[in-house]
Amino acid sequence: MKDSNLVYGMRPVIEAITAGKVIDRIIMQQGLKGELVPELGKPSVKMIFPFSTHRLKSLTGLCGNHQGVVCFLSPIEFQPIENLLLSVYEKGEVPFFVILDRVTDVRNMGAIARTAACAGAHGLIIPDKGGAPINADAMKTSAGALSILPVHRSANLKDTIDYLKKSGLRIAAASEKGTKNYYDADFTGPLAIIMGSEEDGVSGEYLRRCDDVVKIPMRGTIESLNVSVAAGILLFEVVKQQTFK
Amino acid sequence: MKDSNLVYGMRPVIEAITAGKVIDRIIMQQGLKGELVPELGKPSVKMIFPFSTHRLKSLTGLCGNHQGVVCFLSPIEFQPIENLLLSVYEKGEVPFFVILDRVTDVRNMGAIARTAACAGAHGLIIPDKGGAPINADAMKTSAGALSILPVHRSANLKDTIDYLKKSGLRIAAASEKGTKNYYDADFTGPLAIIMGSEEDGVSGEYLRRCDDVVKIPMRGTIESLNVSVAAGILLFEVVKQQTFK
Repeated sequence: MKDSNLVYGMRPVIEAITAGKVIDRIIMQQGLKGELVPELGKPSVKMIFPFSTHRLKSLTGLCGNHQGVVCFLSPIEFQPIENLLLSVYEKGEVPFFVILDRVTDVRNMGAIARTAACAGAHGLIIPDKGGAPINADAMKTSAGALSILPVHRSANLKDTIDYLKKSGLRIAAASEKGTKNYYDADFTGPLAIIMGSEEDGVSGEYLRRCDDVVKIPMRGTIESLNVSVAAGILLFEVVKQQTFK
Repeated sequence: MKDSNLVYGMRPVIEAITAGKVIDRIIMQQGLKGELVPELGKPSVKMIFPFSTHRLKSLTGLCGNHQGVVCFLSPIEFQPIENLLLSVYEKGEVPFFVILDRVTDVRNMGAIARTAACAGAHGLIIPDKGGAPINADAMKTSAGALSILPVHRSANLKDTIDYLKKSGLRIAAASEKGTKNYYDADFTGPLAIIMGSEEDGVSGEYLRRCDDVVKIPMRGTIESLNVSVAAGILLFEVVKQQTFK
């Protein structure tokens, strides 16, 4: 595996943590022991997944002696949600965020970031677990957007959604179970749009928090749109409504 | 290369032609000679590209003794444009086609086919040269759409566009050079929408034939949308306008 964001081996990984690098994820061999192992558990490290030796080997491929620990650095810095919102208000703009709930395909995430940047969104909100990693492929598919668009990585999406609601944002989700067509929703005010996983859409626990659950009316027999295409349709409905409000 | 649509070697390729298989493309080694070579030139074969030995080798990889000839079968049957149009009128529907001008990324083509099927388009029109091939990857990305949506492969897109115009269709293209926003165009009648190449959009020779050249207004600094996302925005504007006309 050739990836400039990959760090492997116990000491190099601990050095990356100590140096304050932004960690995307750390993968540890199941049952790994040693005097340095506790160092990996420092609070600055967000995720430690116990992986089997076999799975770790298939992930690391030919990358050398990994000593049971592999770490993926994030190519971007993440922003606190409070800062994102503050910077929008400082600019005197109407907040507009895109939330991804378990979008697992790296290319879909990159494409949505690109579309969000084109639609003038103020940030992308992703969960710290269960979504696509922001890696070299995501950066490439985003056509530069992930270097420009601020990204917040949330440890708890429910809390983040509640925070945005309390801050006056309307929360909308795209779902086949939607009760109204997307163009009948009011997207002119402060807004966050949730796009759901490729498998089963937006989780019920987030749908229940939404002010609007909107659907994209279909013609034909294919079941659903690709999530990055659906995001494009919704985000540019926002652009249209906000341009003509 | 493992591809069930790949046929290689002189006799197997000629057998595929004789059996009336739908050929996606035939690739021949430059300067290839032999008594069977003229058989490859039969009119049923649409494309013969002279390739260097080196290029042919890199294409075929480990596929065995190709004898200078490799043939890709098409996983779908193509339809004459006249039949496509006739079948729409027989159903009493308003024709709606999507034309791809040199969209070269297989996944973009598959994604646009999926979106077109979801939007109730009656067919996809692709050029026989210069676009992405309809292969296993395209079929997969289309989520089944390429098995349902009729596809016309045009030997001359200019002629096909002129034929559609004469048949009463309005021709619209998406372009950053557009003179109006896409939602200001009239998409309620018989329509074909042209989406252009990832590199440089829709060719001037097709833009000149258009009734509408529309743009998607952008906010932000990223230059352009992915073509499959842009197609989604336009095709679902058609769905919206046709639903409320």
